[in-house]
Amino acid sequence: MTNTPTTYNVISSDKVEGTAVYNRAGEKLGSVDDLMIDKLSGQVRYAVIEFGGILGIGTDKYPLPWDTLHYDVGLDGYGVDVDKEQLKNAPRYPEDRSPEYTPEFGRTVYDYYSIPWYL
Amino acid sequence: MTNTPTTYNVISSDKVEGTAVYNRAGEKLGSVDDLMIDKLSGQVRYAVIEFGGILGIGTDKYPLPWDTLHYDVGLDGYGVDVDKEQLKNAPRYPEDRSPEYTPEFGRTVYDYYSIPWYL
Repeated sequence: MTNTPTTYNVISSDKVEGTAVYNRAGEKLGSVDDLMIDKLSGQVRYAVIEFGGILGIGTDKYPLPWDTLHYDVGLDGYGVDVDKEQLKNAPRYPEDRSPEYTPEFGRTVYDYYSIPWYL
Repeated sequence: MTNTPTTYNVISSDKVEGTAVYNRAGEKLGSVDDLMIDKLSGQVRYAVIEFGGILGIGTDKYPLPWDTLHYDVGLDGYGVDVDKEQLKNAPRYPEDRSPEYTPEFGRTVYDYYSIPWYL
């Protein structure tokens, strides 16, 4: 993966919402709904994904650890290595009932995707 | 600075816009208008600030390197160590004419605030 001169490296938080998310086969799974950013370090910790498209699993929001996403310059979107089976029991919430992102909740999310918890 | 149990550590990108920015004296200078996020690492590189309030310097947008901001739990906002004099010649742009965040532009911004360029 290389950075092309025309994409540069940064994206406005305004524009992240709606950025497409793809699986390994390059099929669009859904899009980024929101980002959860560490207030102190400025590091994005979670991408909150709305899966739809080929998965057809409703409109719940799925927080994914940032490290499960890989930006793909060619697709101009994010690739994720998760499949539908894995999402069946994944942490999720309805749009109007966002939980507190407590350390306990965060650890649950990170553990689910086998990403080392960062605290 | 400590993290309190009630603020936790993350903030939605949706809510970052509008987060207040203060000077060292605790006076509100303006607010965060947007964030520029590294697509690959997920690290916030710039906070785009709209200074108003006591500075009264119009509605231009001022990109600041993330490391010039310090989250203040007590204020529930960001503190910056910049004064009005320093902003007089600072990189800025009108809202409707956002530049490309090229490496050259980024380096200009980082150099202006004496923050080491990250590439």
